[in-house]
Amino acid sequence: MKATLIHAPGDIRLEDVPDPTIIDQGDAVVRVVAACVCGSDLWPYRGENPVPEPRRIGHEFVGVVEEVGRDVRSLRVGDFVIAPFMYSDNTCPHCTAGIQSACVAGGFWGDHDREGRPLDGGQGELVRVPLADGTLVSLRDQPDEEHIPSLLALSDVMGTGWHAAVAAQVREGDTVVVVGDGAVGLCGVLAASRMGAGRVIAMSRHESRQRVAQSFGATDVVATRGAEGEHDVLDLTDGVGADAVLECVGTGQSMSTAIAVARAGATVGYVGAPHGVELPVRAMFNRNVGVAGGLAPARQYLPELRDDVLAGAISPGAVFDLDLPLAEVAEGYRAMDERRAIKTLLRP
Amino acid sequence: MKATLIHAPGDIRLEDVPDPTIIDQGDAVVRVVAACVCGSDLWPYRGENPVPEPRRIGHEFVGVVEEVGRDVRSLRVGDFVIAPFMYSDNTCPHCTAGIQSACVAGGFWGDHDREGRPLDGGQGELVRVPLADGTLVSLRDQPDEEHIPSLLALSDVMGTGWHAAVAAQVREGDTVVVVGDGAVGLCGVLAASRMGAGRVIAMSRHESRQRVAQSFGATDVVATRGAEGEHDVLDLTDGVGADAVLECVGTGQSMSTAIAVARAGATVGYVGAPHGVELPVRAMFNRNVGVAGGLAPARQYLPELRDDVLAGAISPGAVFDLDLPLAEVAEGYRAMDERRAIKTLLRP
Repeated sequence: MKATLIHAPGDIRLEDVPDPTIIDQGDAVVRVVAACVCGSDLWPYRGENPVPEPRRIGHEFVGVVEEVGRDVRSLRVGDFVIAPFMYSDNTCPHCTAGIQSACVAGGFWGDHDREGRPLDGGQGELVRVPLADGTLVSLRDQPDEEHIPSLLALSDVMGTGWHAAVAAQVREGDTVVVVGDGAVGLCGVLAASRMGAGRVIAMSRHESRQRVAQSFGATDVVATRGAEGEHDVLDLTDGVGADAVLECVGTGQSMSTAIAVARAGATVGYVGAPHGVELPVRAMFNRNVGVAGGLAPARQYLPELRDDVLAGAISPGAVFDLDLPLAEVAEGYRAMDERRAIKTLLRP
Repeated sequence: MKATLIHAPGDIRLEDVPDPTIIDQGDAVVRVVAACVCGSDLWPYRGENPVPEPRRIGHEFVGVVEEVGRDVRSLRVGDFVIAPFMYSDNTCPHCTAGIQSACVAGGFWGDHDREGRPLDGGQGELVRVPLADGTLVSLRDQPDEEHIPSLLALSDVMGTGWHAAVAAQVREGDTVVVVGDGAVGLCGVLAASRMGAGRVIAMSRHESRQRVAQSFGATDVVATRGAEGEHDVLDLTDGVGADAVLECVGTGQSMSTAIAVARAGATVGYVGAPHGVELPVRAMFNRNVGVAGGLAPARQYLPELRDDVLAGAISPGAVFDLDLPLAEVAEGYRAMDERRAIKTLLRP
């Protein structure tokens, strides 16, 4: 089969690799229908994370079950499934508490499993899925073609944006600020809107992303950033600040802005992996601004968000503005790296 | 009247000062029935906060209204009242959202008011209370003598311990860890227990405090600290960690322990003013451990906790293990500084 490997920063290749097979009897093999490139795939692509040797890449995919191990109970060959960006057993204490991203037996696609065997990435034709019963969420019927991008978005960006809104404790009628206009930030806008926020202020400098944010329910757009952006948001909220803030970037500046625009007693839900973030604990203490969130348990939200997509209540697939065959995966990375695309969808 | 002043670290004096009078028509003058010494009063006493010039001190008191300004609506002369550790208007956006500690018009006892006029401290015979309608919470009837220590505890330590439990989102049946066995930590134990926690693990090294913790509902006591204490708590929770953690100290080590013993997805409710705390954001992110809390809005909780005290549901007054006349205030500080007392109650 064909699968994507990253060889070094900037060096993405689609290569022939052996087809995966069932190794553990809890495994499934899934034929990928659609995959995509994540903002976090750009960290090694840009050299921000090391690439010591060539490895599989990609952690978002939907597809059809092609084979299951003897112990798999909830899936049948032919099922259409959504994979969250991590695999998990869904039975350990952390999973049952809804934090599948901390599963004691789980891990990341493209990494090694608990027995040290390499795992497939999502940007390929087939994927061996460990702990398939715990990891995959299936659909009763094959989805319409139009739903596939939105179902794929649940793998990571929509689950992550949703987690930011859950962690920030967005409530009906709230004024919500979303810091970051990447795919996750845009999905955060959609999540806050779906949860009934009265006002959603999207901080976004890019016109194409502002348009998506507005289509996702943003009522206001603030195009400034840093101290000026904070001032502009406070102006929009009569100096009080937002009831809930979604931090969807992960830099020191974005977190600083998120905390500054939160009203006293509000929570910043953060889902951007922190790079150079220092939390200003004294300022947080004085104003009772909390921070919550982290690596999103996308698995937790899949059933609810799947039903929302199929019912037409949310269409997070609008974050995909570039649709390429898997053969052009390298161009998919380049387009995102150069900010020509918000997010690239790949079809094997 | 007599009032307590701090002249320099270690130098506490009861002195004659002018009686307060109504200055603004929203003021009340309260004759103090009971006051006390706070752990945070020890910061200037120990030279950890500067004392550039002599100033009034004390921020916890209960008493009887002696005089009210023309604009005061909710209080009458003779009312028994509880003062929270900050004054607030209870009408601004932060107050109405329940964060009276961020009141736009409020501030601290013993400091200066918004017009720059000095304010009385709580450790005296009389106190001018600005924004009296917003600040003071009254009782319908005069309380029994036995309830006075518990009502006084609501001024600060019980409201603060309660806030830690609210911020940590303690739920019925939870396993809760309380870091810190000062008066606030002990009140945190009581709060978690009152909220229906199934198990309350008190981290306490002092036998006298362990006994109070147990009387407040602690089911387990861990007397170790640092890495050993973290290990012992994790052992007690099958390696999973606590559903909610109350951080009631404010040092780097106590916060580090609090985060280490929190299970994935849990929240650390912190109320100890942070001294040398750095939040380990990457570790928090990976395990979805949030931090929330801060300067407690004691005013928010006063009506509910007052009713709980009068109904006998909670008796936080047990934190007072030294009861002195106001004339011996200096000994009250010394006893707490030398850890001979958990908390000193003072009677003018």
